Amino acid sequence: MTRPQAFREPGLPEAVTIYEVGPRDGLQNEKVVVPTQDKVDFVRRLMAAGLRTIEVTSFVRPDWVPQLADAAEVLAQLDLDGATRMPVLVPNDRGLDRAVEAGVRWIAIFGSATEGLARANLNRTVDTQFDMFRPVVARARGLGLDVRAYVSMCFGDPWQGPVPIAQVVEAGKRLFDLGATQLSLGDTIGVATPAHVTELIGAFGEAGLGPDVLAMHLHDTYGQALSNAYAALRAGVTTFDSSAGGLGGCPFTPGATGNLATEDLVWMLEGLGIRTGVDLDLLVETSTWMAGLLGRPSESRVLRALTASAV
Amino acid sequence: MTRPQAFREPGLPEAVTIYEVGPRDGLQNEKVVVPTQDKVDFVRRLMAAGLRTIEVTSFVRPDWVPQLADAAEVLAQLDLDGATRMPVLVPNDRGLDRAVEAGVRWIAIFGSATEGLARANLNRTVDTQFDMFRPVVARARGLGLDVRAYVSMCFGDPWQGPVPIAQVVEAGKRLFDLGATQLSLGDTIGVATPAHVTELIGAFGEAGLGPDVLAMHLHDTYGQALSNAYAALRAGVTTFDSSAGGLGGCPFTPGATGNLATEDLVWMLEGLGIRTGVDLDLLVETSTWMAGLLGRPSESRVLRALTASAV
Repeated sequence: MTRPQAFREPGLPEAVTIYEVGPRDGLQNEKVVVPTQDKVDFVRRLMAAGLRTIEVTSFVRPDWVPQLADAAEVLAQLDLDGATRMPVLVPNDRGLDRAVEAGVRWIAIFGSATEGLARANLNRTVDTQFDMFRPVVARARGLGLDVRAYVSMCFGDPWQGPVPIAQVVEAGKRLFDLGATQLSLGDTIGVATPAHVTELIGAFGEAGLGPDVLAMHLHDTYGQALSNAYAALRAGVTTFDSSAGGLGGCPFTPGATGNLATEDLVWMLEGLGIRTGVDLDLLVETSTWMAGLLGRPSESRVLRALTASAV
Repeated sequence: MTRPQAFREPGLPEAVTIYEVGPRDGLQNEKVVVPTQDKVDFVRRLMAAGLRTIEVTSFVRPDWVPQLADAAEVLAQLDLDGATRMPVLVPNDRGLDRAVEAGVRWIAIFGSATEGLARANLNRTVDTQFDMFRPVVARARGLGLDVRAYVSMCFGDPWQGPVPIAQVVEAGKRLFDLGATQLSLGDTIGVATPAHVTELIGAFGEAGLGPDVLAMHLHDTYGQALSNAYAALRAGVTTFDSSAGGLGGCPFTPGATGNLATEDLVWMLEGLGIRTGVDLDLLVETSTWMAGLLGRPSESRVLRALTASAV
């Protein structure tokens, strides 16, 4: 199968971590509710394709996110103590109870840099979200769990419009200071461009949060996700969120593309001679199977090209 | 309408030239044959959207490319001496006759870096293509015409596989030495990645051809076109080929994406604070209209997102 030629760029890392969000962020934003057994198979196939960090589900309220109502059932069938890290999104104290009960060892919380999303998603202000997260993070860390904090709307927001960098850094730093071990900077509506990414990472660095504690969570709404990933790589970031096949849409722009597709990211990284551990053929097979379950074509251009040329 | 925030990156140019290839490279690779009057309107709408270099058609054999059989009729309705440059692809001496007759002032020739494409497209070897182009370029330059030379298959080739950089530089340099004024480096099958782009541009520089005489012609087959454009920008290139709405497929990978969409390129450039002169709203309207004529959705993610959020 076609592959890019590898050319190393001085200063870029030799390996990066792909944080696969397809089973959680992806499926949460798909219309079709995937059966529990297929979700478990999905995670297992992603593992077989070489992914070693997979956000598998979320303990949000089932009436809000019916797509992930079976979180406990999914987790019961997975090896949470194995070599593959399987973080679970936890919105609050009650969610943490359920996660702990299920044997989860990595959690993620979902913070916002903007008032609009804090209100829409958490029914809180940006300020009061920290009060909600503080006991969750403290207890989780006390139990020895790893805590990732998402910072969403880092580059623009459907209510506020442009989001100043200082506002993002402040929200991120406050989340980190609660005890998070990693910040995932989310371009939730996909409006970032490369120098914006570089500036934001630089500003976090000036605030004491270097690229080693940052991850980039990029959306491809305007086709910019991969050039933004490249800019972040150059700025020292080594953890990238993506979803197999580009699963998941953008809830704020119906009809638009969602998460950066893992396949497209892996392709670029292979071209840059950067190890990911991912077997692109197995991943494409998995995403093709999932697209069949969802009844819609994958948004991944790599998947489309590889499956088209195989015909 | 949504726009990216602009952040300037030190070292990047303040303005770039977009070389619009939709009417030629785009329509040539679409199944539907667009009526002559719609082609003329297409070019005029692209001009109204601010594009100042538009490759409008090609004098190839009508039995080979029926999509562009009406080249002379299209040109007869356009102002070839106006402020907008309107290059025309010319395959050979007979094509140059027809172009000169039509009043064309800028021509482009289509060379290949690989034997496979030289054979498939020109029925020549890489070596003998220069013999074919030599009199065309000499006569065109003698008549005061500007000559761009495409170098296709610069990053990979469906027959040869990986294409060594030295092979591309040699073919490009020989085309340039015939008297071309610009080389457009084509990633015809879309397999380039950023450091590969940087290396190739660097190798041309070592051969005496700096980024000022280079253009990048990127395809988005594997979703990599925009990150490659960003790498080329950083390497000093200031001319980029793209097609409105991402018109045109990839003849070697049926079902895959073709040219980089002008809208997606303009979005990134606006985010980098780089002037293009393009009015994105007018361009999206134009591409949406053309997609209607072709009866297929546009591949541009910017177009999809902007038209989705406008609903």
